[in-house]
Order: sequence, then structure tokens, then C-alpha cells
Amino acid sequence: MAAPSDEEGAVGPRCHHRPTAMLDVPFLPFCAFLGTLGLLCVAMVGTWCQHWRGGFSLDGSSRTFNWHPVLMVTGLVVLYGAAALVYRIPNTWSGPKLPWKVLHSSLALGAFVLTVLGLAAVFCFHNSQGTPNMYSLHSWMGLGTVLLFSCQWAAGFGAFLLPWAPTWLRALYKPIHVFFGSTILMLSVASCASGINEKLFFSLKNGTTQYKLLPAEAVFANTLGLLILIFGVLVVAALARPSWKRPHSDSPDSRQ
Amino acid sequence: MAAPSDEEGAVGPRCHHRPTAMLDVPFLPFCAFLGTLGLLCVAMVGTWCQHWRGGFSLDGSSRTFNWHPVLMVTGLVVLYGAAALVYRIPNTWSGPKLPWKVLHSSLALGAFVLTVLGLAAVFCFHNSQGTPNMYSLHSWMGLGTVLLFSCQWAAGFGAFLLPWAPTWLRALYKPIHVFFGSTILMLSVASCASGINEKLFFSLKNGTTQYKLLPAEAVFANTLGLLILIFGVLVVAALARPSWKRPHSDSPDSRQ
Repeated sequence: MAAPSDEEGAVGPRCHHRPTAMLDVPFLPFCAFLGTLGLLCVAMVGTWCQHWRGGFSLDGSSRTFNWHPVLMVTGLVVLYGAAALVYRIPNTWSGPKLPWKVLHSSLALGAFVLTVLGLAAVFCFHNSQGTPNMYSLHSWMGLGTVLLFSCQWAAGFGAFLLPWAPTWLRALYKPIHVFFGSTILMLSVASCASGINEKLFFSLKNGTTQYKLLPAEAVFANTLGLLILIFGVLVVAALARPSWKRPHSDSPDSRQ
Repeated sequence: MAAPSDEEGAVGPRCHHRPTAMLDVPFLPFCAFLGTLGLLCVAMVGTWCQHWRGGFSLDGSSRTFNWHPVLMVTGLVVLYGAAALVYRIPNTWSGPKLPWKVLHSSLALGAFVLTVLGLAAVFCFHNSQGTPNMYSLHSWMGLGTVLLFSCQWAAGFGAFLLPWAPTWLRALYKPIHVFFGSTILMLSVASCASGINEKLFFSLKNGTTQYKLLPAEAVFANTLGLLILIFGVLVVAALARPSWKRPHSDSPDSRQ
């Protein structure tokens, strides 16, 4: 059963004065928890590749591939999530917007650079092994997500950081940018889950380490997949939470 | 780059009077498009299993497994999406709520029944083949999603359809129910994508039909995966759109 009505409570008016004060939790402790969860995901994907998959190199072997999950989880999930949450920090709600815009776009650009390096790792591995690129649903989803992300970054930069976008265009584009912000994160997380699943089927084939026998590596990487999903859901929840949004989005300096 | 600020436009006040009227599209044509897309997903998953995977049976073979993707896509994605959108139909915004509540919960119950049958199909297949259950990340995600769905349905039934839940409890629980409504759909869609990816790696192994050679079946099923993702994103977008929510969520009959 889903979505019985509005996001507002049954007895509340529509302007974010919610009857759910009992559930209010402060943003910053939640954010610290999210940060810890994100770092745990990065540590776990690194540990998986280092401990069970042979570590890292740049020689085109499977150790080059290992950069792919680490960079995608770090860039397209954790750093992307951090970028998305910048405007939920209460300090951003007053004073000049420009420094926060620069921080938001810089974190997103950092996420994008890691993502592109993560793609380069898997293409390099496939090419050196003679394996075709871009055939699995995971690769279609993943590349689609990265293409959406690149459009999102470029359009956000053009509309919100360059000085010549008219106010009406910013106002028109902003809800689209916000919607795709959450959507791209959910697609990233779905791509990670399908990628971890696929990698485990590829890697765990023999003897007592078969995936279906659920060896320690499988339990570890499945748990990593679930934590990535939980991280994505919690970031999207934080973005959607009305009481964590900036109270006055009509401040006059949106053209800074 | 994601989520620069609020979902409201830069020059608009916070009470859903958005400056984006240029982007307003009517709900019902959008809903008809979504319905067509959902039916296309159901038709495509049925065609995939019938045309390339040998059709359907109840004998414990791979033809029993074939019920799994068909029932999951039909129940946990398309019918679930229809249930979630019931309260966005403008007709539901006036008059008694009870018939719409019954429709919403009935569609969700139908989705749940199909989902349980879909799980039964894969457990039956695994058991008859001697394959362990519940080892892959896909299965962990999928079962987690179904468990969340069962909690969501039971809690929604208890809070909104049974007469004894107090108004404060409904008001407290409603945003949680709405949030998990969208979250469960995104998790369903992610589970479907990982499942299609996994099934194609299992099935397309030999000669010219190898997955990496991208035979017709792979293109077809990859396309199905992308359409399921697009369906899920569009349903979540429709649920989140302020102008498609009921204007007065404080109507007096929430206890019907």
C-alpha cells in the first residue's frame, strides 16, 4: 500500500506546518550518521576489492577493474550524496548563496570526476581482456545514469552559477534540477546493486566459494549492497523532508 | 550536481504556488501514458519469457521460474504503481474517502498477492532444482522490498482503514506511509533491474547467444529493464508533484 494522500498529515494545512513534530530529528546528527554510513560503504567496497579481489593496479587486469566499484561508490553515491545535501545545512539558509553554490557544484564535479575515472577503469579492463563493452543491463543503466548526471551538472552550472540565466529560467529549471538530483542518486544506487550482484556471479564460481553457498565474501558484498541502498534512501529522505528545506527560497540573491 | 535548494522555485513562496506553470501537464493524460508504459512492461516481460525462455508451466522447471519475473513486474511494479497513484486522481479529492481507500488498499493487496505468487515461483524452481534460496544480493534486496511492502500494507490497513486509530496517530504515520510508498517502488524497480541482469547472465552463455554478443534477447530484456526504471521514476515523480496532490488534505472524514 502506498501514498494514501499527500505528504502533509491528515489534519495539517499544506504549508509545511506538520502535525508530526514528534518525529522531528535534528539535521546535523542525522547528517553525521549519513556521513558515517557513507564512509563505511567506501571502506567496505575498498576492503572487498583489496581483501577478496586481489587489490588494485593499472595494468588492465582484474585489479584495474577493482577501481571501478570503489570509484563508483565513492563518487556516484557517497560524494554525490554529500553534494546533494549541501543546501540542507542550516548555515546555507542565510548570508550569501555563492559560496554554497560553489561548494555544491565542486562536490558534484568531484563526484563526476571520480565517476568518469571509474568508467575508464572498466573500459580499460574490458579492452585489455578483449571483452565487449556496454552489453549488460547494468552497463546500460550505469552509463545512462552518468549521462544524466553530466547533463544535470552542465545545466546546473549554466543556470545557477553563470550570471546570465534569467530569473524565470532558474525558477523554471530549479524543480527539475531538484527532482533529477534525487532520481540520479536512486539510479546510481540501483546500478551499484546490479553491479555488485553481477560481479559476485562472475567471481564466485568454484568449489566452496560458489556464490550460492554464500561464502564470507558474498555475505560481505551483499551487506555492502544493502548499506548502499540504505544510504541512498536516507539521502533522498533527507532531501524530501520539508522541515529540513530552506525556509525562504525567495531570497533575493539567487543571481549571485 | 543535485538538489540546489528547495523544490520550490527561486522566486516562489513555499505554499505550492510555483513559478513553473509553463511545465504543468494535466494528470490524466500523464496517467494514461503511464498506464500504457506499465502495460508495455507487462507485455514485454511476458513476451521475453514466452518467446525466448520457453513459456510457462507449474512443473518446477525453468518454465516455472518464468512466472517470477512476470508476476514481480506486474505486481510489485505496475499494479503497485497504480495503487500508489489512486489519490492523485482529482475525483478522489471531494466526496467520501472510504471508496478510494478501499480501491487503494485493494490494488495494493492485489499487487501483494501477485508478489507472493512470484516469490513462490522462484522458491519452487530452486527447491525442485536443488538450488539454495536467498544467496544473491538480488534476492536479499527483493525479499527486503517485499517485507517492507507487507509492513506497509498492514500498517496502512491498521491506521487508515480500521476505525480505531486515533487522528494523531494517522497524522503521525501518514508522511511515513507516503515516503515508504515511493521508496518501496524504487527498491522494487532496482530489484527488477538486478534480476533481469542476473537472469541474462545465467541464460545467455553459449555460442552466438552469449550475453556479451548482445543477441536480440539481450537487447529486448535490457530495453525492458530500462522501461521498468523509467516507469518507476515517472510514478515517483507523479507522486511528488505538488500540483497533483489533493489541495485539502484536512478534510474531516479521514476517520471513515
